Order: sequence, then C-alpha cells, then structure tokens
Amino acid sequence: MKVKNKNYSSIWDDDGVVKIIDQTKLPFDFEILELKTLSDFCNAIKMMKVRGAPLIGVTAAYALSTLIKKNSSDSHLKKIYMSLLATRPTAINLRWALDKVMSDIKKSNVKNKKEKAIEVARRIRVDDIINCQKIAINGYKIIENIYKKRKKPINILTHCNAGWLATVDWGTAIAPIFFAHRNGIPIHVWVDETRPRNQGALLTAWELSNEKVPYTIIADNSGGYLMQKNKVDLCIVGSDRVAANGDVCNKIGTYLKALAALENNVPFYVALPTSTIDLKQVNGKNVPIEIRDKKELSNIKIKKNSKIIEGSIYFDKTNLLNPAFDVTPYKYITKLITEKGIIDCKKESIKKIMKR
Amino acid sequence: MKVKNKNYSSIWDDDGVVKIIDQTKLPFDFEILELKTLSDFCNAIKMMKVRGAPLIGVTAAYALSTLIKKNSSDSHLKKIYMSLLATRPTAINLRWALDKVMSDIKKSNVKNKKEKAIEVARRIRVDDIINCQKIAINGYKIIENIYKKRKKPINILTHCNAGWLATVDWGTAIAPIFFAHRNGIPIHVWVDETRPRNQGALLTAWELSNEKVPYTIIADNSGGYLMQKNKVDLCIVGSDRVAANGDVCNKIGTYLKALAALENNVPFYVALPTSTIDLKQVNGKNVPIEIRDKKELSNIKIKKNSKIIEGSIYFDKTNLLNPAFDVTPYKYITKLITEKGIIDCKKESIKKIMKR
Repeated sequence: MKVKNKNYSSIWDDDGVVKIIDQTKLPFDFEILELKTLSDFCNAIKMMKVRGAPLIGVTAAYALSTLIKKNSSDSHLKKIYMSLLATRPTAINLRWALDKVMSDIKKSNVKNKKEKAIEVARRIRVDDIINCQKIAINGYKIIENIYKKRKKPINILTHCNAGWLATVDWGTAIAPIFFAHRNGIPIHVWVDETRPRNQGALLTAWELSNEKVPYTIIADNSGGYLMQKNKVDLCIVGSDRVAANGDVCNKIGTYLKALAALENNVPFYVALPTSTIDLKQVNGKNVPIEIRDKKELSNIKIKKNSKIIEGSIYFDKTNLLNPAFDVTPYKYITKLITEKGIIDCKKESIKKIMKR
Repeated sequence: MKVKNKNYSSIWDDDGVVKIIDQTKLPFDFEILELKTLSDFCNAIKMMKVRGAPLIGVTAAYALSTLIKKNSSDSHLKKIYMSLLATRPTAINLRWALDKVMSDIKKSNVKNKKEKAIEVARRIRVDDIINCQKIAINGYKIIENIYKKRKKPINILTHCNAGWLATVDWGTAIAPIFFAHRNGIPIHVWVDETRPRNQGALLTAWELSNEKVPYTIIADNSGGYLMQKNKVDLCIVGSDRVAANGDVCNKIGTYLKALAALENNVPFYVALPTSTIDLKQVNGKNVPIEIRDKKELSNIKIKKNSKIIEGSIYFDKTNLLNPAFDVTPYKYITKLITEKGIIDCKKESIKKIMKR
C-alpha cells in the first residue's frame, strides 16, 4: 500500500536479504531494517518491529530461509525453530509458517534445502498478499451491502492495527476498507487508540492517512458510547488465533468492543487468513495469553520540537499488568471474513472451510 | 486522607481564602493553589485542577462565597452563577451546589448575605466529607460480606478516580476500599488507566499508594480479560450524574466495564452522594456529554531525568474525538451505594431515597 504515494509492503527480500519497515519508529520515522542473524529476527518479532499475526508468520519463514544458508543441519534448524517459536506465544501464524517451511524442507533433498527454504518463504509472502486481497474483496461485499441500504458514509470501528502493516500488504480487517474506499464507497473509520502500544493511533491512522481514508482516533473507552449513539455501522477486527469453535483471540480490548456491539446491534466481523485458525485449539479458554513488559504501559514516546523522547507517564513502574490479548467468545461474532469466503463463526463452518 | 503520612483534603479555606491541590500536577508534583478570582475558579474547574462531581460542586459553592465579597448584587451573582455553570456540562453536583448557595443567600437579609454564602459553602464541604464517610461505611458492608464468603484478598476493579481527590475527603467508589483496608480486609485494586487523562493511573494509584492499599494499574482494555479469568470480585465506580431511572453517567469507558461485569457475573456497584442524582433527568439518554479538547488524547506529559515534558504522542492532531463520559443503563448496575444507604438502581428506590 501507499506511503507518501509510493507503494510498499511490510517485508520483502532483495536477492535473499530480508528487509522490513521498523514499525516501532512509525509514524514519526520511516526506517527500513535488514534482518540477517537469528538475534535480528527474534528481536524484530519480540520488540514488535514487525507485528500482526500474518506478518509474524512471514518473518519467521524468512528467518529460516536466511539462517539455513550458514548451516542446514537438522539440529541447527531445530534450534532456530525453537527460538523463533518462543518469541511470541499467542499468534498461531508463527507456528503455522515455521511448520510449513520445515515440512517442505524435509521433503526436498539435501542439496536443494536452501533453495527450497527461500522458495517457500517467498511463496508464503506472496500467498499472504493474495489472501489479503481476497479478504479485501470478500469484506468489500459486506460494506457494499450496508452502503446500498444506508446510502450515506459508512462508519466502521476497528481495534489495534490489522492493516497492511500487520500482514505483507492490504491487511485483514482494514483490507476491505482500503478496497471499498478505492472503489468509491464513502467510509469513515473510528480508530481505537489501542493502549498500551497505541497501534491504532500510530499505525492504523497512519495507513488510513496515506490512503486518504477519513478516520477519527478515539480512546479505547469511547467505542461503547459511539455505538449507543448509533455512530458505528459495523466493527471489523483482525485476529491472532481463532480456535476450532470460533472463539477469537485478538488484541486486548477486542472483547469489550464485541460486547458493546452485540448490545447495540452492531455487526462485529473478524477478518483473517485461514492460517490464523488453530484447529488444535478446541476453544479460546486455553489460548496462551502473552503478558508483555510493564514498560509498555508506564513509558511512552512523545514528539517535542521534532525530537522523539521516551519517558515515564506514571510515578509507578512496579504495580502494572500488561496482558496483550483477550478472547472473544464465538457467539459475539457476526461472521468471519477469510480468503476462502465469509463464513459463520461456528465449529462446523470452520471445519468445512479448513478442508477446502 | 494521607499524603506522605500527613492528612489532607482536596479543598479547604483559610479564613475564607480557598485552597486546592492542583490535580493536573499530580502525582509528580504536589502543589497547593489559592483561588481568588472568577477566572481562577472557572479555570480550575475547566482545566481539571479540581475534578470529580462532588469536588466540582464544593468548588463552585466556594466560588460564590468568595466572589460575593466584592459585589453581592443579584446581577453580579447571576453572572458568576452562569459562568460557573458553563464550565463543565455533565456533573450535576455543580448545578446542585450553585443552586443550594443561591437559594440560601436569597433567604437571608442583605447584610448577612456574605456571611451566609461562606457558611453554606463550608456546610457543603463538611457535608461532603460526612456523606463520603457514610458511603465508606455502607460500601464496606458489601466488601465485608464478599470477604466472609471468599476468605481471600478481594479484587476490586475501579475506573477513573472516584477517590478522595474527586470529593473533599474519602471519595465515593474508593471510600469503601480505604475503609475496608483500614479495618483489616485484604484488598487488591485493579486500577483502570482511564484514557485519555489517565486519572486512574495518576490519581487513584497515587491515593492507594499513599494509603498502602495494594493495587495494579491496567490498560482500560484489560478489564474484560481479567473478569473472564475470575480475577475481579466486584467493580465499584463513581458517577457524574444519575438519572431518575437509575441510568448512570460516568467517565467514558464505564459502560464497557459494566457490560463485561454483567457477562461475567461480577457485581457492579456505583457509589455516589445523593447530590449526584438528577430527578429532572428522566433517563440517561439526554444527559449532556462533554466533548473535551483533542489535545487530551494526542498530548501527554512524561517524566524524563526528573523533568516533566509535554509532547504529542500521535503524528495526527486533527482527526480525534474526545467524549468525556458515557451512560451505563440501570439494568447493568447491581446497587447504588449512597450516604443514605445501599439501594436498588431503580426508579422507585431512587425516588424514595430522595424524599428521605
């Protein structure tokens, strides 16, 4: 998608050298980083220089394809696999992408392993773009239907960043919004700030601004009020893991918005590639919820006289808890928007689509 | 309540000179301000140097008693009344306190007006302390009952600041917590950060810390997750205005927590003096919701090398909306804790208690 009218994706390789946009610097600085060592890759994922379930998956695949070049022994690959898997516990696409590369490498003979690895990583990257484009088109139909009925700008609320920066291109939740906007449907997006890391206010707002989609940043507290006042036509969010029964694990705070949506008859959609579905997870109750650094709550970066300064916003740096995700039970979700189509958020529908 | 082991209240007068703690400086700096002119008073309320429905009421009463000294003409008083009333639209205690002083002045003869005004302001201040102590004792019974059943530390979630800084002393929602803690019930408080002004993380945490009540600051997004995980035994919040039918207007985000509480069978209490009840407001739908400055969302103060610096946290300072309150329908509220007792959040119970 566009950054100052030039097209970018969130991760790519130049002749095998992996490059990312450092998302911790956005929107104030636009910096491109090269990832070369295991520590580069692990650090990029852990510190959220790359984030978003699909992008984490692609990054992990690229890590294997980069690090296999030096040493393609099974023990080395196993070590890399384990280190990458441990970076973040919740997003299932990480495990999915690592398993995909590992299994495809296993199938190829010793000589071809390195070529195979980069080939699979690139395939995963391209598939992610294609899947997100399909999500864009599928989700577009929902927005178009609502627009045909309402015939006025459609107000969509989203939480966190599930735009192109969370994937390779297009995004999940925001993909249908970009697509509908490019196709002339008037849209306004309510952007949840998304404490504590403010991915909504920092990343989603920046993406929408670059694509010239009208939006308004709100505190996470405001969504219920806006729904009560009929200012939200639908919600679309992404996901880090969907359980077999349809329970959706996503950025902390998603659950509260889903409750408010149900209460106010606002449709609540979740957009995701099917690689986010974890059939081994019976329901959402046991999805591991990452508890992140307290500093993410107590510290913040400000811009002052064109300088970026980090400092603490509380007097207290001890008594803090920072869970990164919550689980929204399937019953609150109107539909899932996937690359394979729009489906009910039910066990049977999920099982069926995963077989296709 | 205690600040570094010394007792304070949030507002008082020294021989008629009104003093407040500047709450915009807390918790980093503890500064006492004198309020003398109409602009001092209006500015203190508007800029939230004093905030919290009960404290806004007391401040307005003191404004009248201070400003009547220079000119006690009806036209002057009317002008002061209108200016103060316009400072903040949502908290009903503001109108209540102004009306109380005005009506008591009217009853006294011309000579006594000035004396009467300060007398009434002081009476309102003292009554606020007494009412909050009663709220403390009434709410304590609820906490004690839960403690008797659970026999382990009680986890209470609160939103915004409804502690002593929101009143003159003790507070509303936090008063029962202070009282229970002082009486040996082990309590742990989940403190919602309360974006955008962070009154939870800045003020409530500071109050609890000074009183040595264990607490943990969380992002506003985390409350639902904690309730799902059975980590919240009850919620207590304050209110800025309660309608005749029991709908509760309070800090933005309260509604989302009430929805999650109902969904997870967590009792949800609202603590308030009856001066917060507005019988003229049939229900919560038409309570005026203050839309505050966008800067409250986009700017923040950080502490860096013991210096306080304010700067912007977003690249965008335009596309923002900052509603300050929302309305929680009465059906989500377990009980109201008032100085006159604990009552059902129902029209009939409210009507009855207001007659007492």
